[in-house]
Amino acid sequence: MAKMTRELVLAGLNLDAEANMPMYRQLYEYLQQAILNGRLRPGQRLPATRILAAELGVSRNTVMLAFDDLLSEGYLEGRTGSGTYITETLPDNLLQVPKEAEREKPTCPHEIGFSQRGAILTEMPIGTINSRDDIRPFQHGLPALDEFPYDVWSRLAARQLRSMPSHGLSYNCAAGFPPLREAIADYLRTARAVRCEASQVIIVNGAQQALNMVTRLLLDAGDAAWMEDPGYIGALRAMLGAGVRPIPIPINEEGLDVEYGRGLDSGARLAYVTPSHQFPLGVTMSVCRRLQLLEWAEENDAWIMEDDYDSEYRYCGRPLSSLQGLDVNERVIYLGTFSKVLFPALRMGYLVVPENMAEGFIAAKTVIDRHNPTFEQMVLTSFIEEGHFTRHIRRMRLLYEARQEVMCQAIEEEFKGQLRIDFADAGMHVVVWLPEEWDDQTAARRAEEAGIVTAPISGYTEMHKQPPGLVLGYAGFSEKKIRSSVRRLAVALGM
Amino acid sequence: MAKMTRELVLAGLNLDAEANMPMYRQLYEYLQQAILNGRLRPGQRLPATRILAAELGVSRNTVMLAFDDLLSEGYLEGRTGSGTYITETLPDNLLQVPKEAEREKPTCPHEIGFSQRGAILTEMPIGTINSRDDIRPFQHGLPALDEFPYDVWSRLAARQLRSMPSHGLSYNCAAGFPPLREAIADYLRTARAVRCEASQVIIVNGAQQALNMVTRLLLDAGDAAWMEDPGYIGALRAMLGAGVRPIPIPINEEGLDVEYGRGLDSGARLAYVTPSHQFPLGVTMSVCRRLQLLEWAEENDAWIMEDDYDSEYRYCGRPLSSLQGLDVNERVIYLGTFSKVLFPALRMGYLVVPENMAEGFIAAKTVIDRHNPTFEQMVLTSFIEEGHFTRHIRRMRLLYEARQEVMCQAIEEEFKGQLRIDFADAGMHVVVWLPEEWDDQTAARRAEEAGIVTAPISGYTEMHKQPPGLVLGYAGFSEKKIRSSVRRLAVALGM
Repeated sequence: MAKMTRELVLAGLNLDAEANMPMYRQLYEYLQQAILNGRLRPGQRLPATRILAAELGVSRNTVMLAFDDLLSEGYLEGRTGSGTYITETLPDNLLQVPKEAEREKPTCPHEIGFSQRGAILTEMPIGTINSRDDIRPFQHGLPALDEFPYDVWSRLAARQLRSMPSHGLSYNCAAGFPPLREAIADYLRTARAVRCEASQVIIVNGAQQALNMVTRLLLDAGDAAWMEDPGYIGALRAMLGAGVRPIPIPINEEGLDVEYGRGLDSGARLAYVTPSHQFPLGVTMSVCRRLQLLEWAEENDAWIMEDDYDSEYRYCGRPLSSLQGLDVNERVIYLGTFSKVLFPALRMGYLVVPENMAEGFIAAKTVIDRHNPTFEQMVLTSFIEEGHFTRHIRRMRLLYEARQEVMCQAIEEEFKGQLRIDFADAGMHVVVWLPEEWDDQTAARRAEEAGIVTAPISGYTEMHKQPPGLVLGYAGFSEKKIRSSVRRLAVALGM
Repeated sequence: MAKMTRELVLAGLNLDAEANMPMYRQLYEYLQQAILNGRLRPGQRLPATRILAAELGVSRNTVMLAFDDLLSEGYLEGRTGSGTYITETLPDNLLQVPKEAEREKPTCPHEIGFSQRGAILTEMPIGTINSRDDIRPFQHGLPALDEFPYDVWSRLAARQLRSMPSHGLSYNCAAGFPPLREAIADYLRTARAVRCEASQVIIVNGAQQALNMVTRLLLDAGDAAWMEDPGYIGALRAMLGAGVRPIPIPINEEGLDVEYGRGLDSGARLAYVTPSHQFPLGVTMSVCRRLQLLEWAEENDAWIMEDDYDSEYRYCGRPLSSLQGLDVNERVIYLGTFSKVLFPALRMGYLVVPENMAEGFIAAKTVIDRHNPTFEQMVLTSFIEEGHFTRHIRRMRLLYEARQEVMCQAIEEEFKGQLRIDFADAGMHVVVWLPEEWDDQTAARRAEEAGIVTAPISGYTEMHKQPPGLVLGYAGFSEKKIRSSVRRLAVALGM
């Protein structure tokens, strides 16, 4: 395969006119070594002799002499009309010149040299979702990407490209592109009843960065935090990565069991919750429970991290207000993401922090990575301001509701009522509960073998054992695909 | 000013057909409260009655009754043909309804509630560069943004927009877009003599994220690290933010004073260096010093963080090889940025880590923020693969060299030889040394008053006092602008 044309800049090459060795020979040896030790790769193109001579400040003749020798010895090959390349198939004996002494390489994190806190982060599994191009049913956590109005988005992006002001290339505000912060604040006030001004909104590199920032900025290593059990692994990892002790708190039909948490007297400084639609169980936290939680936070000088990851999708009744909107004591840090309502590759989310914390969070964002890329922020601003955002959400709400109905019907039909589904009134996934004696990891493996992706509930469980269950995402799959895949799942599970 | 049309989604609104209060009145009260407590803002548009009725599952008549009352009481106003809006100028007495009890808000970080480590991050100054649209001479650290081939970039971006594969919207590899990692590895091997494979390259959200990752993953809180003094504040902040103790090591004419560092016996676990072009002094680390530093790292089981931030710009002789390329013991973590060679708003940089650390770094990136936005990575890949990247660097090298010459000449002329300039052979800034009895902070303030941005050397100095000096960036300014601004500076400094 011909490599792409890419011109070389040769580093570490100083030709010395005063040396005993002629300059063309110095160049010859430099290139030979670079080929042998792999810095120059088979198939790679060398600059034209004229350009290289100018770069090196030598005569073109010098370069041509060096090339001639390398060509005649088989290191280089000339292709008519397209320049000089490193030979694609170098003789084996040339390449067997020892490169560097190979050492036994350690693989354990501490031996490798990671710090203690580093080892916690570096040992976390990378996860399969990151390396897969094809999205298989019932992968959860992904929206219907083929329904995203990409034509609109790309039209706005193209317009933005044409009108990019030059300050759009320089550093921008650490808190985010100001009009985007305004647009998000407007949206959150009206759609989620979040109490906020644009000055409290901080644009971050996805919800995952938000989780990390909150954990690091509000808690010290060794501090305890309530974690939903079962709960979202991204939040758990942010806590562990920050050296925070997660305290698993069970979920019941009203949401996080605040009384249970109070009983532990763990001295927790923060509670992580998904009140709109608990991940993974799907419970909506009751108003009474919300008030209890706010009371606990106020009494204990603790924080609530409200992750409102897919709150836009509720199919029965009106969307519930955010927990943040109920809070009069500024105890709630609210976080949201565009990965679920738009698309994950955008890597954009936001934090809403109490007014007197905004400046501190912005300072921290500056130290962490200065700010999010500007271009996407500008395109997203237009997308929201011109009404495409709420229109898309409304469309997806209808689509996902229909898909969820199909999903539940298909499960009812294929599994003949043997699998229970709870809380199928919101979100982008359902949990199906398996017969009690089953092991959900085994079930997930059997599904996987049949090409169906499921996530066993036990995989999200720290301490409070749940019945066996599987998380099934439906948002991204057509009704036809959902039906056929449920059938396939039923066969795989032998039901 | 008319607000943008943005449709409302009303949260927390549940109309109850069974309640004693008629539904239109329930809606009336909900909207009234939302207006009074500021969730709905003056000038904001309400959805059409038809749409709102459908959303709420009530008759259109119900909505119209509620609107009528609000219109007649002055909360809403109708504009012919364009819908119903919250009244722009609400009567003052309405808005004086108490919102929430205002509490005395604490402002000290600990009182606000930040953790101890959080307070370190949140107290760091945000810096002026983030909030300024106009770039004034001699702001350093910025490339010539008006010389960036934005037409080429936007053509590639538009092409990418048209051909975006749907998997480009989903999650991508945490380490970065694979072809980009390949392109960067190719570039670094040839241009910087970095020894690496694509598998060792990790795409990050700018050099600042790289600095944070390395500090956290390789050092624990309380560990010591050598820091160049004077040195780059972004690196210092990453250390402080990670609870690492920076040990200031002086710079002499060969670069970081390794012998001095050894003499301290600080038990440092890492050394941060800018060997190609020390920031801010501009010294290039000698080969002998590089070998000393590598030896120190190997003997002390310590790491070297090589920040190669503007190594592309060297005007005398060939670019020096990277320190990483000299290292046979895998002690060097190499980091680079596209902020200086392309543009900062891109927020893209990279790490090159030892082979056996790559997986750990990728896992950590997953926990930190999953991955960089995909679109920019794809555009950048084309930009490099199609030769625009090296072409741009070559063009800028000539441009900056010329600008630097003009800068030095102008300083010579305007200051009549009273100011010394060292190491003016590389990079995007020079340091001018002021007469010894001067205070560089005062000089910087006087320059600022004349509209000239300078950075006093004392601002980068921790412990090892330098003579008074000013950092002047020239890369982004025309020759004419440079001449006139140097003149202005001379006047401001009274020379």
